[in-house]
Amino acid sequence: MTSQHTLDGEFTVAYRHRVRFERDALTSGTALAECLATPDAEPARTIAVLDAGLVDAAGNLPALVKGWFEKNARVATLSADPMVLPGSEAAKDGLAPVVEPLLASIARGALCRRSNVLAIGGGAFLDAASLAASLAHRGLRCVRMPTTTLAQGDAGIGVKNGVNLPGLPGPKNLMGTFDVPSGVVNDPTLLATLDDVHWRSGLAESIKVALVKDVGLLGLVESSTDALLARDLDAMEAVLIRTAELHVRHITEGGDPFEAQLARPLDFGHWIAHELEVQSHWLVPHGEAVALGMMVDLHLGESMGITAEGTADRVDRLLRQLGFLSWRLDSLEPSALMSGLEHFRQHLGGQLTICMIETPGRAVDIHAVDLDAARAAVECVCGNLVGR
Amino acid sequence: MTSQHTLDGEFTVAYRHRVRFERDALTSGTALAECLATPDAEPARTIAVLDAGLVDAAGNLPALVKGWFEKNARVATLSADPMVLPGSEAAKDGLAPVVEPLLASIARGALCRRSNVLAIGGGAFLDAASLAASLAHRGLRCVRMPTTTLAQGDAGIGVKNGVNLPGLPGPKNLMGTFDVPSGVVNDPTLLATLDDVHWRSGLAESIKVALVKDVGLLGLVESSTDALLARDLDAMEAVLIRTAELHVRHITEGGDPFEAQLARPLDFGHWIAHELEVQSHWLVPHGEAVALGMMVDLHLGESMGITAEGTADRVDRLLRQLGFLSWRLDSLEPSALMSGLEHFRQHLGGQLTICMIETPGRAVDIHAVDLDAARAAVECVCGNLVGR
Repeated sequence: MTSQHTLDGEFTVAYRHRVRFERDALTSGTALAECLATPDAEPARTIAVLDAGLVDAAGNLPALVKGWFEKNARVATLSADPMVLPGSEAAKDGLAPVVEPLLASIARGALCRRSNVLAIGGGAFLDAASLAASLAHRGLRCVRMPTTTLAQGDAGIGVKNGVNLPGLPGPKNLMGTFDVPSGVVNDPTLLATLDDVHWRSGLAESIKVALVKDVGLLGLVESSTDALLARDLDAMEAVLIRTAELHVRHITEGGDPFEAQLARPLDFGHWIAHELEVQSHWLVPHGEAVALGMMVDLHLGESMGITAEGTADRVDRLLRQLGFLSWRLDSLEPSALMSGLEHFRQHLGGQLTICMIETPGRAVDIHAVDLDAARAAVECVCGNLVGR
Repeated sequence: MTSQHTLDGEFTVAYRHRVRFERDALTSGTALAECLATPDAEPARTIAVLDAGLVDAAGNLPALVKGWFEKNARVATLSADPMVLPGSEAAKDGLAPVVEPLLASIARGALCRRSNVLAIGGGAFLDAASLAASLAHRGLRCVRMPTTTLAQGDAGIGVKNGVNLPGLPGPKNLMGTFDVPSGVVNDPTLLATLDDVHWRSGLAESIKVALVKDVGLLGLVESSTDALLARDLDAMEAVLIRTAELHVRHITEGGDPFEAQLARPLDFGHWIAHELEVQSHWLVPHGEAVALGMMVDLHLGESMGITAEGTADRVDRLLRQLGFLSWRLDSLEPSALMSGLEHFRQHLGGQLTICMIETPGRAVDIHAVDLDAARAAVECVCGNLVGR
């Protein structure tokens, strides 16, 4: 018989999550300076890393960034010219596209734990750049400027990052960390150069969080469809602020910021969405995939008697008005998407836990899925994706 | 003039750090089961990963591990045969030696966030394996069994991990995270196969933490030298428990578990130690390097009027009795070690902060170093390392 000598101890760590909306943040704003400033007397050394897709659409961005640092040299200084690295899902294909070059640049520039990484781009790009920042010296400061509707309302404002194992299939985000950024600055004026698909993409996440938490936001989106389709920046900003607020409050007040528990309400519709993205080799953009995924789970919920009848129709109508649910692919086997359930379970861990909607604004977790009903829902929603 | 819309919020995360000493943990103990068990009804799927250096010395280890899981199948099950991966500093040469194969195995085995990585080995090996565990799905559970004196008293019981950029020089541990293991099980019987260098290695860290925090521990080591040299396991266990306890209390009660502040008292002597390891291409083992690094900072402290006179002599005597300070190298340029100051500053971030000893058990932080005195101290301690 052996005896133990126990040294167990407990501690807590306090985090501050800063998320601000500000127009013209790179020219006349103050949010960036507030987020990049450190407690040190010296200006904070900073490496700026930009999403190549964004630089293609807005060629003046590197000059704009350099100009900001020239004007704010007492707050922060660039350690090198802004780096431009691949954006979109290519950013997350293992460590090679973004994580490794950014780490090498951090080492070359002799940046320290009080230095900043300023990452400007879409959600996938921010996921990869934030992982590099969180690994370097076990965590440099990281300030994010999300530049898509998806990133400003959802992907860019959370406390997690990640990339995929190169050569999926497999679960998404296999390599990542939970890490609270030093600040997130959402500048709606950066959304102007988005194409229509990326302009509407974030609205899928707005509708998702509305269904899970806030029927009022669903009403706001429904009453704003004309303005949103006309690319009215005020209308989009109002929707994104409410979306981001619900997301941030879920993190800061939901009691499980680093997702130690099984419930993951903000992943409503995502088990099928992630699988659609992976199996289409990223041809289906995230917002379109989330729209399809939500429809699957609303139909599934109705046929399992969980979701109030008529909910799927209401959301279907709204999504179609906004341009979603018209995506087409060359080939896809709907039944193969069922593997998304197991991949989703692995990523959360433990028992399968899926968020379902009872009525818009009210969600419930379930741990068992009627597989026949799920297959039927997938077939119903995704069966017409192939061909025109 | 622009205006901000602020969504800032704050939250705290609670952590439990479990560190237990238990003999024969793989045969008759209970600590491993306690640490590997999850709240789920199903046994926790587990991947076991073993330090190749350890398996060389104790060839029955894989069978012992498999036997444990057979006996405890209701608590945890192996997802595959134990993996054997490189140990020592080779484990930390980038992601290729340990991190990538372990991540691939986690993906292949479809492990989830409620699965365990059980890592058994020395400190460097545990640093690399723990990084893989903390990245997979943003954090699998990780249970560590440190198998060296260094790892049981210091490197294996903390809340950080890391590997180096491949192809140093540069700061150590450029890629890593802060991550609290699900449990650490220190089994002193695993120390039996260590060679003499690794047997004494951890005592350098014991003397370090004694100098920083506890003169009583210094006395315990001084009064145990004969038993320690005779490889008395009871004597070593008593020293390691006190060392680990001071280390764990520093993490759980010191107010800065994830090292957001500048002070790093447990890194006393380490600015020179890390540089010695890197510049000797890891020929100088960590314990020997820490012994040399402490002597540099004690001489420096005495010449700067910070450290009480006689302290360096007292520690020099003890270290030599235990077999330290006799290391020899083919080539080394003592003055080149001065770059350790800047590498150390980068890793901590911000202003240079070095821990110095006033009297044994009482430390103080300084932010400026008398460089001439530092060069003289380095020359005095390291000048005779070359040749015999």
